[in-house]
Amino acid sequence: MLFKVEMKVNIPHDLPAEVVDEIKATEKAYSQDLQQQGKWRHLWRVAGSYSNVSIFDVADNTELQELISALPLFPYMDISVTPLCRHPSSISSDDS
Amino acid sequence: MLFKVEMKVNIPHDLPAEVVDEIKATEKAYSQDLQQQGKWRHLWRVAGSYSNVSIFDVADNTELQELISALPLFPYMDISVTPLCRHPSSISSDDS
Amino acid sequence: MLFKVEMKVNIPHDLPAEVVDEIKATEKAYSQDLQQQGKWRHLWRVAGSYSNVSIFDVADNTELQELISALPLFPYMDISVTPLCRHPSSISSDDS
Amino acid sequence: MLFKVEMKVNIPHDLPAEVVDEIKATEKAYSQDLQQQGKWRHLWRVAGSYSNVSIFDVADNTELQELISALPLFPYMDISVTPLCRHPSSISSDDS
Amino acid sequence: MLFKVEMKVNIPHDLPAEVVDEIKATEKAYSQDLQQQGKWRHLWRVAGSYSNVSIFDVADNTELQELISALPLFPYMDISVTPLCRHPSSISSDDS
Amino acid sequence: MLFKVEMKVNIPHDLPAEVVDEIKATEKAYSQDLQQQGKWRHLWRVAGSYSNVSIFDVADNTELQELISALPLFPYMDISVTPLCRHPSSISSDDS
Amino acid sequence: MLFKVEMKVNIPHDLPAEVVDEIKATEKAYSQDLQQQGKWRHLWRVAGSYSNVSIFDVADNTELQELISALPLFPYMDISVTPLCRHPSSISSDDS
Amino acid sequence: MLFKVEMKVNIPHDLPAEVVDEIKATEKAYSQDLQQQGKWRHLWRVAGSYSNVSIFDVADNTELQELISALPLFPYMDISVTPLCRHPSSISSDDS
Amino acid sequence: MLFKVEMKVNIPHDLPAEVVDEIKATEKAYSQDLQQQGKWRHLWRVAGSYSNVSIFDVADNTELQELISALPLFPYMDISVTPLCRHPSSISSDDS
Amino acid sequence: MLFKVEMKVNIPHDLPAEVVDEIKATEKAYSQDLQQQGKWRHLWRVAGSYSNVSIFDVADNTELQELISALPLFPYMDISVTPLCRHPSSISSDDS
Repeated sequence: MLFKVEMKVNIPHDLPAEVVDEIKATEKAYSQDLQQQGKWRHLWRVAGSYSNVSIFDVADNTELQELISALPLFPYMDISVTPLCRHPSSISSDDS
Repeated sequence: MLFKVEMKVNIPHDLPAEVVDEIKATEKAYSQDLQQQGKWRHLWRVAGSYSNVSIFDVADNTELQELISALPLFPYMDISVTPLCRHPSSISSDDS
Repeated sequence: MLFKVEMKVNIPHDLPAEVVDEIKATEKAYSQDLQQQGKWRHLWRVAGSYSNVSIFDVADNTELQELISALPLFPYMDISVTPLCRHPSSISSDDS
Repeated sequence: MLFKVEMKVNIPHDLPAEVVDEIKATEKAYSQDLQQQGKWRHLWRVAGSYSNVSIFDVADNTELQELISALPLFPYMDISVTPLCRHPSSISSDDS
Repeated sequence: MLFKVEMKVNIPHDLPAEVVDEIKATEKAYSQDLQQQGKWRHLWRVAGSYSNVSIFDVADNTELQELISALPLFPYMDISVTPLCRHPSSISSDDS
Repeated sequence: MLFKVEMKVNIPHDLPAEVVDEIKATEKAYSQDLQQQGKWRHLWRVAGSYSNVSIFDVADNTELQELISALPLFPYMDISVTPLCRHPSSISSDDS
Repeated sequence: MLFKVEMKVNIPHDLPAEVVDEIKATEKAYSQDLQQQGKWRHLWRVAGSYSNVSIFDVADNTELQELISALPLFPYMDISVTPLCRHPSSISSDDS
Repeated sequence: MLFKVEMKVNIPHDLPAEVVDEIKATEKAYSQDLQQQGKWRHLWRVAGSYSNVSIFDVADNTELQELISALPLFPYMDISVTPLCRHPSSISSDDS
Repeated sequence: MLFKVEMKVNIPHDLPAEVVDEIKATEKAYSQDLQQQGKWRHLWRVAGSYSNVSIFDVADNTELQELISALPLFPYMDISVTPLCRHPSSISSDDS
Repeated sequence: MLFKVEMKVNIPHDLPAEVVDEIKATEKAYSQDLQQQGKWRHLWRVAGSYSNVSIFDVADNTELQELISALPLFPYMDISVTPLCRHPSSISSDDS
């Protein structure tokens, strides 16, 4: 089941640089693990912004909540979620 | 080059039904042709809304404008465009 | 799987009264059928507004889209959808 | 009498972790006590967000104010309140 | 139980003048009847606007919905409702 | 001359508790003094929010500014002001 | 007593041209009469917009409401009102 | 050439009081100097708000930018600028 | 003197096609004449939208108002105006 | 390929002055280098605001992201990006 997830990162300027670096490294590893599992199906950078547009492929709303709330950057992001489904004009075989 | 395009359809209620039907049929054929060419790379319905989330893959801004302004439903849609690029954490080989 | 759905009705003032009456009657029957099936789990009127707050219980995003887009009032409503899941502090046995 | 209450939690990043932990523990106990009393009738997590959607069942506006302003997280939440009532199409026997 | 109700009137310009006049006359009589019953406790015009600020005193959310949805101008107004209660600094004996 | 004034309190979380307590005590005394003078004619708590809805009765805009800017909580509040006048359908003898 | 009043004109495109012309002529005469009386103290066009910024000088909120609601274009304008008073840094002798 | 300039002051609560006092004193002197030169033609306080509505009379956009960005409170204000010109219904001889 | 002007075209769907065509032809000629005079210095289409971003170079606010309000599409556009000036980091010799 | 980029600078008031000065100096040098390369084609100050309106000319979305995210002020700015293309009424030979 697909969801569009948009994340905008707002790191407080007074967070120590080494804390930020560690959070970002953990975030990257976590993100790549979810991508390899096929749960974080697409991940794009918004050009000119510290933001991304993502497509998640999860079993249900509960799994979506578990994956997103475990993001290391979760406390520092504005996140919006949009449930998606097959479009009647889509020619894709797997809604990817 | 990728763009996220979100389209919300607002058909005026006093447009004759046969006009609407013809516009929708033309829109579907046009959309499927662009999908087959690989230019309209993803097309999803927003669940619970007469809207879609799309990913376009075009040569440049000019081609994006040509493709979108030629949509039969173009005069009846609110459209927002977001330029995308590769995310540094992406593991995708082709940013698809 | 639960979704909060909020619907605000905006019927154009120049729609003939008998058309409106028929849409409303069909809407009521459709809504009560979904409630009896357990798919439209809660339905409340917003006090002082031609709006409702609803909780849908569906198999997935696709079913949500099918149920909502088939609403007779669908073309005349502003609809917002929010995916829900179990709250860690909830004491409910079935997230109802 | 029912109210929809939406709460979005915004904990300042410089609040000490042990203070946050204690607030959250107290909040959970308080919330579960109100649920057991039947005053906090429904409590759902918004998927992908540190937010909830709740239905309160209270005697009047005054009780609503007393219950919400006593929430341990009250100073750190954006809260919106919507008064609800029976919907003419509802088939529920108790508007639950 | 008190509610602040704000109403902004938007009469479509193509509604016939005699229809508008009749709606307004019925609205005035209805409003004055509710004021005499003490249910529409305060009614003020917003200076420079076709809007009002009102305080309703009703038994519960259900009565509020019944009174407001029966307003002859109801289909032509944007209405917002805010539940009120006694303020801890108020010196009023009856929260009027 | 009447004004609706809405005040939403936003006290910074790092303000010392004893400073906050003193501001609130002074605010309460100041508010009750203005109520006794008849200048702060109505004061209600918004249910579920650290906000109030007030009706001020002042000689002119200048007095309104003097009274509001002297509020001890003034630096910590979002305040909106709406000028009111008699409504043509009001049955009140004194626009109270 | 001074108020800033901003007016944005939105004339429906299906209003007959001669009706529009007559409304505009009446509006101009009415506006100039109020200017000559000193009640409409300043009137500026917003560059690039069918809007104005005005300063009214009236006895009270009631007079403001009477003057604005009598504007021939009143049903076709979005109007916002802001109460003004003397600024402590002003060097003007009459707050003009 | 006239511009409407609206300024809303937001002084951080942790700025030392003596720094704030000095900024305000400098701001007042600067503002009064510009008023005497005729460049800051009108200055009004918004009643009930730490804001002002101003009319600047400058040679061009460049001078406007120079005057505003030199305001001692500039880093602590939300500022909006609207270009004005003569209104066709104005009876003023100098657009003042 | 430079202004950024953004124009979004909203042509009512019930305007006859031949009227629209004539307005557009006149608009194009008018726009190209202003470009040749150097007053409409830049004109870009927003990709994916019936909108443009423009830079006008005019003597003052009055000329800006005259040029924009004379646009054949003026009654059918949402227009926003932003005054510009030289940026201290610009290396351009003529701020073009 | 052209993009309109709008940047609003929000430097935290508790950032040390020497840090701010160094960031600004680096920003200026970086901006002027991009201007000389022709990638930052236009740069204007918004009159009365710590903001700019810019036109970037880049190879694609990826280059836009690289240039903007490398801005020394990037962490302290609200940035919005709009893709542009040739307007059908433009008379410019190079869309400059």
